[in-house]
Formats: sequence, structure tokens, C-alpha cells
Amino acid sequence: MAMIKLVDTTLRDGGLVNDFQFTDAFAQAVYRANAQAGVAWMEFGYRADKKLFPPERYGKWKYATDEDIRAVVGEHSPMRISVMCEVGRCDYRQDLHPKVESPVDIIRVATYLDDLPQALQMMDHAKGLGYEVTCNLMAVSRCERKALEQGLEALGASCAMGVYVVDSFGALVPKDIRALTELFLERLEGKAVGIHAHNNMQCAFANTLAAMETGATLLDGSAGGMGRGAGNCPMELLAGYLGYPIEPLLGLDMDRGGSWGYNTSYLLTGLTDSHPASAIAATAAGDRDYGKQLRRLRGERP
Amino acid sequence: MAMIKLVDTTLRDGGLVNDFQFTDAFAQAVYRANAQAGVAWMEFGYRADKKLFPPERYGKWKYATDEDIRAVVGEHSPMRISVMCEVGRCDYRQDLHPKVESPVDIIRVATYLDDLPQALQMMDHAKGLGYEVTCNLMAVSRCERKALEQGLEALGASCAMGVYVVDSFGALVPKDIRALTELFLERLEGKAVGIHAHNNMQCAFANTLAAMETGATLLDGSAGGMGRGAGNCPMELLAGYLGYPIEPLLGLDMDRGGSWGYNTSYLLTGLTDSHPASAIAATAAGDRDYGKQLRRLRGERP
Repeated sequence: MAMIKLVDTTLRDGGLVNDFQFTDAFAQAVYRANAQAGVAWMEFGYRADKKLFPPERYGKWKYATDEDIRAVVGEHSPMRISVMCEVGRCDYRQDLHPKVESPVDIIRVATYLDDLPQALQMMDHAKGLGYEVTCNLMAVSRCERKALEQGLEALGASCAMGVYVVDSFGALVPKDIRALTELFLERLEGKAVGIHAHNNMQCAFANTLAAMETGATLLDGSAGGMGRGAGNCPMELLAGYLGYPIEPLLGLDMDRGGSWGYNTSYLLTGLTDSHPASAIAATAAGDRDYGKQLRRLRGERP
Repeated sequence: MAMIKLVDTTLRDGGLVNDFQFTDAFAQAVYRANAQAGVAWMEFGYRADKKLFPPERYGKWKYATDEDIRAVVGEHSPMRISVMCEVGRCDYRQDLHPKVESPVDIIRVATYLDDLPQALQMMDHAKGLGYEVTCNLMAVSRCERKALEQGLEALGASCAMGVYVVDSFGALVPKDIRALTELFLERLEGKAVGIHAHNNMQCAFANTLAAMETGATLLDGSAGGMGRGAGNCPMELLAGYLGYPIEPLLGLDMDRGGSWGYNTSYLLTGLTDSHPASAIAATAAGDRDYGKQLRRLRGERP
């Protein structure tokens, strides 16, 4: 338990449901609540490329600049601070600055398995600037086993200090997560393993526990479970179960725009191991023809 | 897997959120959908004592009479039919009729551990009338270990064909459920073990899987998870994961009045292993002062 680190992803994954339109007061409140509750790491957002993602459309945590983070955390944070850099969506050579000039401690590189070579370049670059580095291996439920093992070998030899099991589609259940966590621990000998879960099959918390019980130590959660589609593991649930003082988290006002959380449309993308995009659209449209949604996801005649 | 039986509790546990005010059309639709989806057992409601629960307040499935059930299922049901008789709330000597005159197959006796002697009398009575009998051991999370073991010994020697692990307060996580299911299987040698989960900590489905993987074969679910407080394991999630044809379940219109489903108030009663009544009241009142709710549940100054 001493090695367990709770990692808050509210501004990052949560930002996917409201285009990162958080007020400064809310960002401050999440930061304070996390610090008081004993959350170890806080992820402030993506460091997305402004040339690809126009700033008039998104809030500041889409870009999570050093300046904006410093305005929240000041010079010394009790938590370690991370930002996410996604392969193909981050101009890391331009937008990452030397660690000594930045409030960021950890660069979390998000990649699909197919893009791992680019991710490794990005990780080496960040490491060279003085950051610690972790890797989000996205959509692990869709990875072919042999390719996954090869990817883990490469990550085992990389500069990353930790690698996350990421159930992007919420398609996995605890026994799957146990097996993956075991594989990750075995192939990444010596590195930390993390878990980032989605709630399409109501397993985000249970999967996080399953990973933890198997040896994962980096446990993602977000306030109220705020996150894309069915959302994430609610931090107040995870932290409460683990005996952290959750009252600061309970005081957060989670009316942040956007919607998230389990519903039948998300269940169906989870069951079919599919990207949640169609369920997000169905939810937004109030479409409750779940039979038709399921047939579409299965590639059957709707 | 061949021994797995999905048990639908929509009209029974779901009735707790709308005072059993289901339309006849909905009861028919649930029955047809379950039958088509391959659900093995369907629980039609409580057989509550009308002297204690006035019929002007509740819908018919609070009493689940033989006549009302027969009006839905006809003479031959593809599913086995059960009703729940709760100790102290059912005049079983008057309201249970010989099995040969009834469409009901299984009497499910609900009891707290303290009331087990009365439950055993009720079970013997039902068995004597020709029914199969199961037992819902409610609020197992609050049972003292020694007393639970003694209760299981008595149930092991009883006429029950199955006993359910019932996480009434949604206070348990998969590892707890695995340990309890093992204990039940060991002490009830030869009897079936069932699982009835609540979703206060978002573990209803994961706990149902944990029980199943440990050897439980009677798996409760309800359409849309409809059930008291945070609700139950959604049948479409459980059945979908297990590969049953869920399209009939997906077609049900779940706007049945009342509200249910995970929220922070239910989380707090789950975390503190408390009855959901205070969270039901807080939810109905729109009370979001979760810090105060938590302090109350802990017996601290609010």
C-alpha cells in the first residue's frame, strides 16, 4: 500500500467531455481537493499542438502550458504534476521545455501500440529534458497478443518509469485486468504498472482494484468519474475505499458541462470492444434504440 | 456455465423504487423479454401481507398473487417463477397455497441472520406445500463471522436448494464476494449459492462475476439495474457479457417511475456499510452536501 499512488485525471480525461472548458476556480478547487485527500499525482491536461487543435475551440487544459499550470500550483506542489502528450497530436520538440523551467514532473506519453516507435522517440526526448516519463498504452483490449508482448519488451527497455494498462473501450472485466497486469509486470520487470479504466461495463473501480491487487501501483481516477463516454473510476470511490480522507473531494461541484457515465449505449460499445464515439453520439441525440445500436456495432443490418 | 441460472428481479427489487406501480404491459414485456433472452428464473415480486401493507398504496407485485402471476405466464412458463416471502412481512400460512394450484415454482425466503429460525419455519412450510425453496440472507456485510457460520450450518441442514449472498448495502467488493461465496459453498455443501448485488460502489456486475467465478450459479439481475437505491446488476450487462441474446432486454422501456442508480450519496452508504435509506432520502431531496452526509453516517457531528 505504501507504493500506491492515486493519479487524478479530472482535467485531462474529464476535459474530453467539455472541450476543457473548466473555470480557473474549478481547476484550483480540484488541485486543492486532491492535495488534501492525499492524491499523489495530478494530471493537468494534454499538451496538444495548437497548430492541430485551434485554441478558440478548447479550454486551456487541452494545452496545459507550464505557465497555466504554474498559475495553479505555484512553485512547490505537494503532488507530482503530469501532462499527457499523445503521439501525433503533440509538437513535443517545440512544446516541451527543460524540466528545470517547468512545474511538470512527469510526461505521460499516450500511444496506440502501432505508434510505439514514435512514442519511444517522444519519451526519450522528454527524458532528455529531465522529466520522468510514463506511457499510456491505449486500447489494450484490441491488441493482438504477440504484438503486445513485443511492445512490452520495447517498453521494458525504454526510459519509462511506468506503463499503464489502458482499457480505452471499457471492454474488460477484472479477470482480464488481472491477466494483463500480470503480463505487464512480468515483461516490464522493475517498472511501475498503472491502470486507467473506463466504466462502460461498470467495472472501472473493480478493474482498478483488480489491477492493484495484482501489483499495479499507479491508479487513475477522476472526480465524479468525469471522463469520456462512460467515464473513469471515480476518485472519491477509489480513495474512499482505500481509506483516504475524501471529504475535500466530496465538496467539488461537478457541474462542469458535458455528460458522462454509464448508460446502455456505452454498455454496448464496451460489450463489442468498440470506440465509444457512436455511443457518445447516441447519448447526445437521446437515441434509445439500443437494439439497432447493437446491430450496427456488430456490423449487422440495422 | 451449463449450471448458471440468470434470475430476473425487476418486478421485485425494482418495485421498491416505484411502490410496485408497474403497468400490466410492462410486466408482460419483462416476462417475454426474459424468456426470449434465456433468463432461467423470474421473480415476480413479494408476497407481502396485505394486512401490513395496504393495497391502496402498492401495486400488485407487492403481493404477487397466484392469479396475477398466472395472468402473465399462463399455464406453462419456459422460465421457473419465484416470489419472495420476507420474514415478518408475509402471512405465509394464509397466503401460500399448494404448489399444484400455483404457477409459482420457487419460494424465496428473505431474512436477516437474526431471524433465521422464523425463516426456517417458513421454508419448511413452503417445502411442505410442494415448492422449491431458496433463502436470501440479507445484509451479509453486517454479519458477525461466527454467527454467519452458525447460520450457514443451519441452512446447510435445511430444505433450501439454494442460498444467496446478498450485499444489501452494496458495501462489498469482489474479493469480499469471493471469500463469502467460498464460505457459503463450503458450509452449504451440495446446495446452490446465489448472488444478489447492489451498485453503491459500482461493483454489482463485478461482484456477480466474482461470485460466478467462485462457483455461484444463481445470478440475480434486473432490467436496467432497476432496484432499491443504487440498483442491482443490470441484466442486459450480465447476460450480454455471458453471451446471451440480449436484444429483447434492450427493447424494454425502463421509464417506470422512481429513480435508482449509482450516485455519491449511495457511495457513502456503501462505504460505511449502511442501509441506503438516508441516501434515498438525500437523493430525493437533491441534497448534495456529501461531506455532511458522510459525517452523519460516521456518527460524527454533521
